[in-house]
Amino acid sequence: MSDTLEFYFDFTSPYGYFASLRADALAEDAGRRAVWRPFMLGAVFKETGNAPLADQPLKGAYCRHDWERMAKMMDVPWVLPDPFPIAALAASRAFYWLDDSDSDTAKDFAKATYHAYFSEGRDIREADVLASVAAPLGIDPDQMLLAISEPAVKQRLKDETDKAIERGVCGSPFFIVDGEGFWGSDRLWMVKKWMAGKRNW
Amino acid sequence: MSDTLEFYFDFTSPYGYFASLRADALAEDAGRRAVWRPFMLGAVFKETGNAPLADQPLKGAYCRHDWERMAKMMDVPWVLPDPFPIAALAASRAFYWLDDSDSDTAKDFAKATYHAYFSEGRDIREADVLASVAAPLGIDPDQMLLAISEPAVKQRLKDETDKAIERGVCGSPFFIVDGEGFWGSDRLWMVKKWMAGKRNW
Repeated sequence: MSDTLEFYFDFTSPYGYFASLRADALAEDAGRRAVWRPFMLGAVFKETGNAPLADQPLKGAYCRHDWERMAKMMDVPWVLPDPFPIAALAASRAFYWLDDSDSDTAKDFAKATYHAYFSEGRDIREADVLASVAAPLGIDPDQMLLAISEPAVKQRLKDETDKAIERGVCGSPFFIVDGEGFWGSDRLWMVKKWMAGKRNW
Repeated sequence: MSDTLEFYFDFTSPYGYFASLRADALAEDAGRRAVWRPFMLGAVFKETGNAPLADQPLKGAYCRHDWERMAKMMDVPWVLPDPFPIAALAASRAFYWLDDSDSDTAKDFAKATYHAYFSEGRDIREADVLASVAAPLGIDPDQMLLAISEPAVKQRLKDETDKAIERGVCGSPFFIVDGEGFWGSDRLWMVKKWMAGKRNW
């Protein structure tokens, strides 16, 4: 048994955002540490053949309504950003660059980035937006923006995404507990049971 | 406020099967009556552009594992039938034919049909399987099999499926509470809250 709860998410995923607000507490309540792992959902969609939820007839309308309803039920801030969805390459690369030196700062950056996108509707693809998210956290924006243009950092995100797919990550959010995967922000109850050893098989 | 909980499902949907085991109790606990409504998920997939879960790379493997895990966690019988998925036209038509004269018998038939498919792995497209499901419930199998070949009964299922899509049903299971829709067997908690008036907006 490991002491972690792996939390896979894409920065453009509303259900990833909702799960991100609970991931740390969920892990801590079970005596574990949440390990955050952004990945490119677009690469998963290439595997599964899915289109983004918002672009699907019927499901798009349902989900737009559901996101709003979910935010009100959870009592958390919510806006549907424009543009949405996006390819959050820059934010995801920045995360891994930060994570290599300080995983807590990387998490704080991820939370602030989610907040900027889904609470303030800011376009997190923009360098100046990411810079303004990073600066209050004590991160040097210029250094960060320079880093995410480096081939090694770009490759890192690609590798993490490939690894996620190899491990069976089929959507966002996705949790892994001791090798066992759980897809969806509606499955926190099952993640919790699993961490408590209530595996029932 | 109505006194019903509308429960939309496809007989070939594992998550519909799991939800079916709780739909009646969920409604009754809220002082409501569950109204069962089978529909053809294939028609919804034509709208949304989705493929069946089991056929999607990554998601297929995840879901096959998840169905087994879910059954063990719920402590209910489970087999992945072969063939799967199927177009459960005959069973769905039989349901509506029964429902017109006795909704309780129709529900019992639906439960027995789900059981035959997902607990015993029997091919519920076959006339003799449906006949053997119907007979112990006091349904005349010959009369039922004759009825489901009638154009009016076939049209009824088509109409119900069209109506489901018009109402925003985007997957199976799908619940409607006073016009408000909830998709997925993971959303019973939200259906429950909604019926209790905890709508929080």
